[in-house]
Formats: sequence, C-alpha cells, structure tokens
Amino acid sequence: MSSTPRIDTAVVGDALLGKWKAERLEGRRVAADPRFQTIPGQSMEDHRARAFEQLHGLVAEEAIQRAFPGDLGGSDNHGGNIAAFQELVFADPSLQIKSGVQWGLFGAAILHLGTRTHHEKWLPDVMSLKLPGAFAMTEIGHGSDVASVGTTATYDPEAEEFVIHTPFRGAWKEFLGNAALHGQAAVVFAQLITRGVNHGVHAFFVPIRTPSGDMMPGVGSEDDGVKGGLNGIDNGRLHFTQVRIPRENLLNRYGDVAADGTYSSHIESPGRRFFTMIGTLVQGRVSLDGSAANAMKAALAISLRYASERRQFPGPDGRETVLLDYGLHQRRLLPRLAETYAMTFAGNRLLETFDEVFSGSNDTDENREDLETLAAALKPLSTWAALETLQEAREACGGAGFIAKNRLTGLRADLDIYVTFEGDNNVLLQLVGKRLLTDYAAQFAGGDKAALAKAAADQLGDRVSRFGLRQLGQSIADLGLVARSVEGVRDAATQRALLTDRVQTMIAEVAGALRSATKDLPKPERAARSAAAFNAQQAKLIEAARAHGELLEWEAFTEALAGFEGDTLTVMTWLRDLFGLGLIEKHASWYLVHGRLSGARVEAVTAYIDRLLGRIREQALDLVAAFGLTPELLRAEIATGIEAERQAEAQAYVDARVAEGTWPVHEKDLRKAAKAAAKAGRAGEAAPAAAAARP
Amino acid sequence: MSSTPRIDTAVVGDALLGKWKAERLEGRRVAADPRFQTIPGQSMEDHRARAFEQLHGLVAEEAIQRAFPGDLGGSDNHGGNIAAFQELVFADPSLQIKSGVQWGLFGAAILHLGTRTHHEKWLPDVMSLKLPGAFAMTEIGHGSDVASVGTTATYDPEAEEFVIHTPFRGAWKEFLGNAALHGQAAVVFAQLITRGVNHGVHAFFVPIRTPSGDMMPGVGSEDDGVKGGLNGIDNGRLHFTQVRIPRENLLNRYGDVAADGTYSSHIESPGRRFFTMIGTLVQGRVSLDGSAANAMKAALAISLRYASERRQFPGPDGRETVLLDYGLHQRRLLPRLAETYAMTFAGNRLLETFDEVFSGSNDTDENREDLETLAAALKPLSTWAALETLQEAREACGGAGFIAKNRLTGLRADLDIYVTFEGDNNVLLQLVGKRLLTDYAAQFAGGDKAALAKAAADQLGDRVSRFGLRQLGQSIADLGLVARSVEGVRDAATQRALLTDRVQTMIAEVAGALRSATKDLPKPERAARSAAAFNAQQAKLIEAARAHGELLEWEAFTEALAGFEGDTLTVMTWLRDLFGLGLIEKHASWYLVHGRLSGARVEAVTAYIDRLLGRIREQALDLVAAFGLTPELLRAEIATGIEAERQAEAQAYVDARVAEGTWPVHEKDLRKAAKAAAKAGRAGEAAPAAAAARP
Repeated sequence: MSSTPRIDTAVVGDALLGKWKAERLEGRRVAADPRFQTIPGQSMEDHRARAFEQLHGLVAEEAIQRAFPGDLGGSDNHGGNIAAFQELVFADPSLQIKSGVQWGLFGAAILHLGTRTHHEKWLPDVMSLKLPGAFAMTEIGHGSDVASVGTTATYDPEAEEFVIHTPFRGAWKEFLGNAALHGQAAVVFAQLITRGVNHGVHAFFVPIRTPSGDMMPGVGSEDDGVKGGLNGIDNGRLHFTQVRIPRENLLNRYGDVAADGTYSSHIESPGRRFFTMIGTLVQGRVSLDGSAANAMKAALAISLRYASERRQFPGPDGRETVLLDYGLHQRRLLPRLAETYAMTFAGNRLLETFDEVFSGSNDTDENREDLETLAAALKPLSTWAALETLQEAREACGGAGFIAKNRLTGLRADLDIYVTFEGDNNVLLQLVGKRLLTDYAAQFAGGDKAALAKAAADQLGDRVSRFGLRQLGQSIADLGLVARSVEGVRDAATQRALLTDRVQTMIAEVAGALRSATKDLPKPERAARSAAAFNAQQAKLIEAARAHGELLEWEAFTEALAGFEGDTLTVMTWLRDLFGLGLIEKHASWYLVHGRLSGARVEAVTAYIDRLLGRIREQALDLVAAFGLTPELLRAEIATGIEAERQAEAQAYVDARVAEGTWPVHEKDLRKAAKAAAKAGRAGEAAPAAAAARP
Repeated sequence: MSSTPRIDTAVVGDALLGKWKAERLEGRRVAADPRFQTIPGQSMEDHRARAFEQLHGLVAEEAIQRAFPGDLGGSDNHGGNIAAFQELVFADPSLQIKSGVQWGLFGAAILHLGTRTHHEKWLPDVMSLKLPGAFAMTEIGHGSDVASVGTTATYDPEAEEFVIHTPFRGAWKEFLGNAALHGQAAVVFAQLITRGVNHGVHAFFVPIRTPSGDMMPGVGSEDDGVKGGLNGIDNGRLHFTQVRIPRENLLNRYGDVAADGTYSSHIESPGRRFFTMIGTLVQGRVSLDGSAANAMKAALAISLRYASERRQFPGPDGRETVLLDYGLHQRRLLPRLAETYAMTFAGNRLLETFDEVFSGSNDTDENREDLETLAAALKPLSTWAALETLQEAREACGGAGFIAKNRLTGLRADLDIYVTFEGDNNVLLQLVGKRLLTDYAAQFAGGDKAALAKAAADQLGDRVSRFGLRQLGQSIADLGLVARSVEGVRDAATQRALLTDRVQTMIAEVAGALRSATKDLPKPERAARSAAAFNAQQAKLIEAARAHGELLEWEAFTEALAGFEGDTLTVMTWLRDLFGLGLIEKHASWYLVHGRLSGARVEAVTAYIDRLLGRIREQALDLVAAFGLTPELLRAEIATGIEAERQAEAQAYVDARVAEGTWPVHEKDLRKAAKAAAKAGRAGEAAPAAAAARP
C-alpha cells in the first residue's frame, strides 16, 4: 500500500444511523440540550425530581408520542420511536429509562395488551404525563420467571370486579420505576382466576395513587432507595391487599372475562397466550440493545481521543509515546471499536425486524418469533459489551477516567442494570439456545430419531475435512509461513463458515447429550434425568447462543459492507475482519479441540489481527468521527483536546528552556558522558565522573 | 464417596487470616462499628466530612499507629499494620483509602524517605491527624511515569531554600486525596535541580494550607469533584508557583543537598536511586492486594448465600429450583470462590515478604526486588478479579444486586480505581514481565548468545515430549475415556508443570522475538527497532506476567494445603484443583497451540471441572463461612436469610390453600387432563376439554 486510505465519514455515519436517521438526529438534538443532561453528584432526591421534570420536557419536545396511534396524537412510527429513544442515553440514562417506564412499558402495555376502549380512556393522559404509571410485572420472589408470579386477580362476578392481591411478601411487585413516588396507576401482572380456574398471567390497570400523591386504599408502596445507578428513577415496591378494580380494567386483547365470569381467549394454548402477551416486551430489549451500542460509541470516542493525545514514557526518539501507539493499548480498545460497529449494524437490523412486526407490515408468527430470538440474542451481547467497553475505556484513561465529568463511570454505573433487566442476559440466551435446539430438531421432521443421531454423528465425526483444512499435515507444513497460513481463514466465506459451524456443532453436541441422557429410559424417570441432563448442558447451550449472536453481528456487519466502496470499503472490511477474526481468536480453543483449525493457523490469525490493529490504529479517529457525536453529546473534558493542549504547553516550555540554554542537564547524562570520556581517555587522566562534566 | 466431607471452618478461617490474625480481627472490630461504615447515597460533601471525622475516630481507636517507630508512639509492626488496614475495606473504602493517604502515603513517605529530624518534627502530628497531608506524586501529565514529572525543586543557595514550581498545567499534581479540602501539607515529588543539574525525582515536605484552611502563598488547589467512587475522599489538584521551602524540607534519606548546593547520595546510580525511593510505594500495592481479596470475600458471601436460598423456575419435582443448583450459576460463582482462596493465600505470602523487608528482618536487595515483583504481579490480578467478582455477584443477584443496601455496586464503584492507582495494573505487569526477561537472560551469564538462542529453540522446538503427554497418539486413544484422560493432568505436580511451563515458554518466545528483531543490526538502528519489537511483544509479555502471577497464586494455595488434614484437606484440595485446572482451561488454546495438551485432554479437564463444581457446590456455604464475615461486616439485606423467609412464607401460603382445597386449578392442567380423557375415552364421548374438567 502506497498511502493510507481514508474513509468517507459521512457515508459511514449514515450507515450507522440506519433507516431512522431523522429520528435519531432528533433524539440527539434533545440529548444535546442541557436541560436533559445528567448532573454528576446530584442527590437521589434532586435527581428524581429532575428526571420527572425532564419527562414533561420530553412531552413538550414531542419526543415520546411516535409509537402511539395516529388518531390519539401519535404517529404509528414504531421503528423511529425506538431509534430516537436509543439516543437519549447520551443525555442521561435515568431520563431514558424513566421515559421507557412511562411510555415504553406502562403506556405500551396499555397499547399492546389493551383494546380500543383502554386506548381512548388512558393513552392521551399517559402521553401527556397527566397519568404517570408503573409497570408492575417483576416480584421480589419472581424476576425472570414471570409465569410464576404470586399476585392474583380473582374475579368476583357479584361485584363484576377483579380483586388484586399480593398474598405474601414474595409476591410484592419490586424494582418498579415510578412506584416509589410518581406513579398514579400501574399495569399489574397477576394470575387471572375466575370460577376457580387460574388462566395464567394477565395484565390489569390498577390505580395506585391520587394525583396529590396519596396511596389508594389497599395499595402500599416502599422505596427501593439508592441504587448502583439510575438514581433519577424512583424505583419501589408495590403491594396490594384485596384491591378491587372494575372488570373492564383487565387489558383484554388476548384474554377476557365476561360479566358472569366466563373466560375466553382467541389463543387456545395457555402457554402460547402467555408468550404472546409477554412478547410485547421485546420492545424494551430492542431499545436497550441500541442504547448499549451508543454507550460504547461514547466510551470509544472519549478513550480513543484521549489515547491519541496522551503521551507516557519516553520513546526511542526521546519524545514521549502517544498511548495509542502502544501495542497493548491497541489490543485493548480497537477490537471494541470493531465490535461497536458490528453491534450497531446488527441493532439496526433488529430494529427493522421490530418495525416490520409492530407496524404490521410483516407481522407473521414466524417473523415475530425471529424478532424475539434476535432480540434475545443481541441484547445480552451488546449490554455486556457496553459494560466491558466502558470499563476498558475507564482504565485506559487512568485516573482521568474515574472523574465523573469524563462520564465513563457514570454511564457504566447506570448501564450496569441493563444486563439483567428487560430479561436477564443469561435467561435470554437460554431462550435463544432452546430455539436453536428446536430448529435443529425440526430438520428431522416426523421425529426421525435415526436421522437425528446420524446428523449429530456427522457433525462430530468429520472433524478434519470441513473447510478443507487438511489439519494434520498442515500443522507441520504451515509452520512459520504466517502469510500463507492466514490466507485460508481471512476471507469472508471462511469466517462465516467457521462461525456458523461452531454454532451448529455446539447445538448438535448439546442435542446429542440430551438425547443420550434419556435414551431407553422408561417415561417416569425421563423427566428428572432430562432436567439433570439439561442442567449439565446449560453453560454450553448458553455459549452456543452467544456464538449465534456473534454470528448474527458478523453477518450484519458483512451485509453493511455492500453499502461502501473504494477506500471506505477497504477500511470497513479490515474492521469487519478484525471483528470476525477476533471472534475466532477468542474461541480458538474450541476450534483447536474440534480440529477446525491447526495451532499454526491460530497463531497466524493472531499475527494477522496484530497487522489489522496497526492499520486500524491509523483509522481510529476517523472511525470514531463517523459516530457523529458532538461535544454536547460527549461532554467529557478529556475528549475536548485539553490533553493535547497540555502536552503542547509542556513541550513548548521545555523547548524554550532548551533554546535559551537554561534546561538543566540530567545527572544521568552527565554520568554517561563522564563514563564515555573516561573510556576514551587513558586510565590516569580520567577525572571523577560527575565533577568533570558539571557545567 | 459415601458421605459428603465437611471442612473445619475454624481451621480454614485461621489459615485465611494468616500470620497477623489478631491485627485483622482488630481491623474487623473497627469495621463492624457503625461509626466507620458507608451511608449509601450520602452527598459528596457529607461523605467527605464524615470520612475526615472517621479518621479522627481511627486515631482514637489506635488503629493507625502500628507501622510508625516505637519511640514516637508506634509499634514498628509493618505486617500487622497492613493486615488491619486491609480489613477496613469492609467499613468503607473511602475511609480506607483516606486513611491510606494520610498514614500509608503521606506519613509513610516522611517515615521512609525522610530522616530522624523529619520523623520527630512531623510524624507525631501526622499520627494524631493534627497535620493532615497529601501525597503529591502523580501529575495531570504524568501518571505511571513518575520519572518524567514536570514539577521542579530548584535549590537557591543564597536563601538556602528550594523553590517548588509547576511550570505548566501538565505538571499540576493531580488526583491527590486530602488536596481539595483537608491537607495542610504535602509530600511533593519534584525534579531536584541544584547547580544546573537535574538529579532526578526527590520528595519534599511542602506546607499547603493553614490550619484554618487558607492556601499558603503560591499554592493553588482545585477540586476534582465527583468521582466514580470513593467520594468520601477530597481528591484534588495542587499547583505551585515559585513556592519556597527550607533546604531541610528535602526528605533526604536517599539524596541530600548541602547548604552550598552540593548534591550527595549514597546510591550512585540515579536510576537505582529513583527506584529505591519509589520502592517504598510497594506498601500501597500490598495493601490493595489484600483489600481486593477481602472485597471478593464479601461479594461471594452475599451472592452465594442468596443463591442458596433464592428459587427460580419450577424443577422436575414441581418445586422451584435453588439458583445454586443451576449448572451455569455454579460456573459463574464457584471458580471465583477458588480464586478468592488462592488470592488470599498469595496475599498472605506477599505480606510476610513485605514485613521481612520493612521490619528489616530480611531487608536484602534481592528480597526487596522479590517483594516488588511479587506485589506488581499480585495486585493487578486481585484488583481486577475483585471487580469481576463483584460484577458477577451483582448480576447473579439480579435486581437485588443493584440495590445499594446489598452493597455489591458500592464496593465495585469504589474499588474500580484500585486497578489503576498505586501503579496501573498493566504497567505493573509490564514491570513483572521485564523482570522475568531479565531472569531469563541471567541464565546465560556472560552474555552467551548462542546458549540463549539454544534455550529459546529448546523451549519452542520440543513441543510434544514435555510431561510425557504423547500428544499425537493420545488424541485418538483418549477419545471418550474421560476419567483416564484427566488423570494425567489433575495431580499437583502436573498442574505446577503446566503452569510453570507456560510462563517459561512465553518469556522464552518474547526473548527470542526481541533478539531476532535487532540481530545483526548496526547499533544506531537498534534502539528504534528494539523499541518497535518490544511494542509488538508488549501484549504477550504482559500475558506472561499475568501467567506468572497465576502461578504464584497457585503455589501459595498449594503451600497452604500443608496446614490441613482429613476432610478439610480433601475439600481444600478440590478447591485448589478447581483453581489450577480452571487456569489451564482458561488458557486451553495456548496449551493446544503449543502441543502441551491434546484436544481430548482439554475436554477432559472441562468435564472434571464440572465434577468439581458439583462437589464444591455442597461446600459453598462452609467455604464462605470460613471467611468469618459477621453480619456487621456484610450488611447486605439479601445475606441475612430474608430470601429464605420469603420463600418459606410463599410455600406455606400455597400449602395451606392446597390443604383447604382453595388453590385454583390451572387452565393448563385442565387442558392436559381433558386431552388425556379424550384420548382414553372413545371419540364420540370426549367432552369439550375445558368445560368437562372445571370443578
């Protein structure tokens, strides 16, 4: 290569913004407004009051109505709504999540689980914030396992009312935003019981406070107090003691109770009905996924800017070395940059699928299921990656990274909970794993067990010949021939094949282990053994789901390459390769154990990654510029150029002293000079080292 | 095994407390006092005031004087001082670090870098807190690279004074505890310049504030404001404009300036002199290492207690499953338990070495160097592990883990900075790596290059025969024979050999790469090329240093086993194996690439770890009980048994309803029953499913 290619940051920036660019920019406009921004160190009380005030500000800015029905003042724009929402993380995650509680959970539950009457009755006040509300699903005793909640809604046909009741402390609704202070109503998830039958979890609209803040009779609230982050949100507990609500307050889109207590639903299977209702929650996961990727953008924009200015330890030329020129610093930050791109592209794809389903443009069962699996695969990976990236960025900025005004610690503290709310990451990945197992089994329609077993054997037995790696001979032949050795894995088709194969093989292995654990067992023993076998495979299944998510990210990045050309395509392909080969390096032991890669090939991958890092280092600031994060969005002192100014000032000071001859000589150099002089001169003439050289 | 062995928690507890058990228990007594404990959500101002007040409390409790000279009211007990200090992390890390600044940095610098006059003049007031002080080493422009600080101390022989000056913003002293509010003096590290010669960095005692809080002339202070944690400490910046101090304020143990400006030192080499002065800083690293291990103990005591009570998702018997019975949950937490033990034992060993050096009982150059290397290897690993363990524990406790009163988020936020202060972890590991390279080169005394090259070749070439693994044949012969396959690696000698070999080989590889990069180059070109080669090897060298630290931890754990017998020895050996094999699993790709382990062996290691996890799961609460952390030290609501109470209450409620026949039947079960009835009965007689089964 003669000269360094440069990317077109505008083109790349647009690709990152995706289909709802206008809404994203609108979200950023709001986030750039100081009224909506975090004040570090605010007390919990002040922060809560401010966040509530900010919600009114969002209403005034018309920032929250997009997803609601057009005839109620919304714009039926589901994708654009989430896109704009994801940008609010730059303002203050507390504001973001508090608005998510009000409109994305409380409001959206009324919208998606309720019917027309409910919409007309409550949504206008929800949208205007006249009616702040809580989303009362999680209980102290049941977080991820919503189907087992203890709260009951028992129908009383005499009064034509439901009685909402939390019969023990474990059933108290917990960690609810808007519950401690501001909520006047809650959508409460409870076991619907009528005529002695429990029809499973349904959602009910329950008033909890008067507008003046008094609790409704039978409703109690406790404050969760200080949290590890998001302290602008008034999380709390709610408990209900025989609280009566009209029959019509059942959000009855998927299940209804007639005046006489007869239950009806157009979804016959209680299991499917439950998952359909719960499926509306996918919106939260989609929202968090893109928010996490945005936080990564901020972390990298801050830390890479700093790393490109900050100098530490003198290099061979005497001048101190810029942090980003250190091999380790590149290893720490640049793969995260590639990952941020991959996650952004994957998130955009997820959002498009979400919009297809929620706008109704492609609302099939299959697409809905794909959406849920996609969200369950991507949200865990991006939210974890955000925490890791914020932490790596914090450490890469040293003490400066720990100061609140540089934003990294605050974002990390707030985003911590993103990995366990709206679906605990591990539980979500387990869902993905189960879906993958189902898909795998579906290949053998009609329950052809022999075919299943054979497929498993094919996957496992043929370890050597896939991808034509000629494993055994190669481990000798390739030795030392790094360039030739990496050729075989660095093209896109092979990256895809390696990533795909890992998912398939892991799933086949899990399926095989599950089958052989219960094979030939009489039915009564099978359930317990099957559960034990599943438990033994749990970690592996979740790892397979993670691998699936990584593959989806890689595919989204690769698809996005089609939108680039010339230098931009060259650089973006390097970045995609850094992501793809980084995954292969990370999982090298798997590829080695399974005979997919030889040891020499793995070493070649690492060597090639090092070369890519050297190239990407030159692109780092451009790739960060393409994020389009203005100073108002970043608001980190160390990302303003202040470090470069300080370095220049220090250098100018030294240069001036040297020029005027007042820069003191260092004792070390005197000693060196004296030593050299002594060596050069004859033994008798050598003067005492230090004294001789003193000016 | 017929029955589950049980450990003797008292014996294990004593082993964990180590040589300074009495001092540790005294530290815990202080930490258990509510006066010294964190109040979550306190404002920065209140927290700072409280921490300062708490320091007075520590003086009253005689908790801080141990390391100071006996005739000045101390007890010359260096090991015991650090041991007690490490336990203060249970009270409040802000209190801990603020006391570390006052007595472990400011006071210790006067003690170790000053001489008798300084001790008599200042230490009594330092100890009584009449003289609060800052440790002014780090600058905005220079963190880890202390040798390059920009602050100057220029001697003026006319006035017999030093002039302390920060000539540009990059030289401002930064992130100093006690600088923003409470400090009245500072030990300032500056380039000592006399007679036009810079003799390198020395420490000076500089008054900065009057007792009433006014800044001294020429001294300026800025407040660092809110931080990501440790907000009880008043970190700030200090700058000095031609501030004059008496000549005698130079802390002159290692270098002095006579009245006429003549410099003298009993350490001739400026480099060695600098490192000797800086070496006194090792105390901070030793302190943080054990504090990090203590935080891990708290994290695991809280999360394992909760995991043993919390139930989620129904198991095959209908009852919900305890979290700790899930395979993944065991994978997430139990290896951290093994690591905590390893780090505690290694930390105890480090502390003993520290005491030998600082008490003078074995203060040789070699032991001092060992101490520094040991501290530089262990502090990074334990402080990083603490953050990861606190985070894993937080996530394993779900939403409850995010609530401040359960302590995990607060500890994590406070300990975040432990990974970059008192030596950035990566910089410390690089020091270790360089020491390993030096040791490696020392094997070939007299600069025998041929021997060096041959040793490198031996390490690299003979990949197959070490440890008699019979690599190639084995990968076929072992397949499926898991039990026999793991035999070869699970004994202690093989674990040690594998861990040792990895360090040695990595260092040999780095040394080889560094040599071949500059081989046959003319001298002028060598410096730049050598720096580039080093940079290319930086990540690998640091990984080798990390491996060295892991080996030291493993060795300390293994040594500790000698103190156990019977069941205790059995269980502790499992735990050591979990730690050792966990390391081998973590680095499996290295062992595979280097032909040290076959793929089948790696799989066998994983399978054996799974078995160990099953055994350790039964021991988890005992192993946590051995930490001896009382409720006053833990102070986490979810570690009080509250979850078990809630579970019992819920279960009792359900049982009572079932007994009285009012527990509603679930629609799901009705449908199942109806389906079964329909199947059993003839086609024509099958009643509508739901209706038929309704009671």
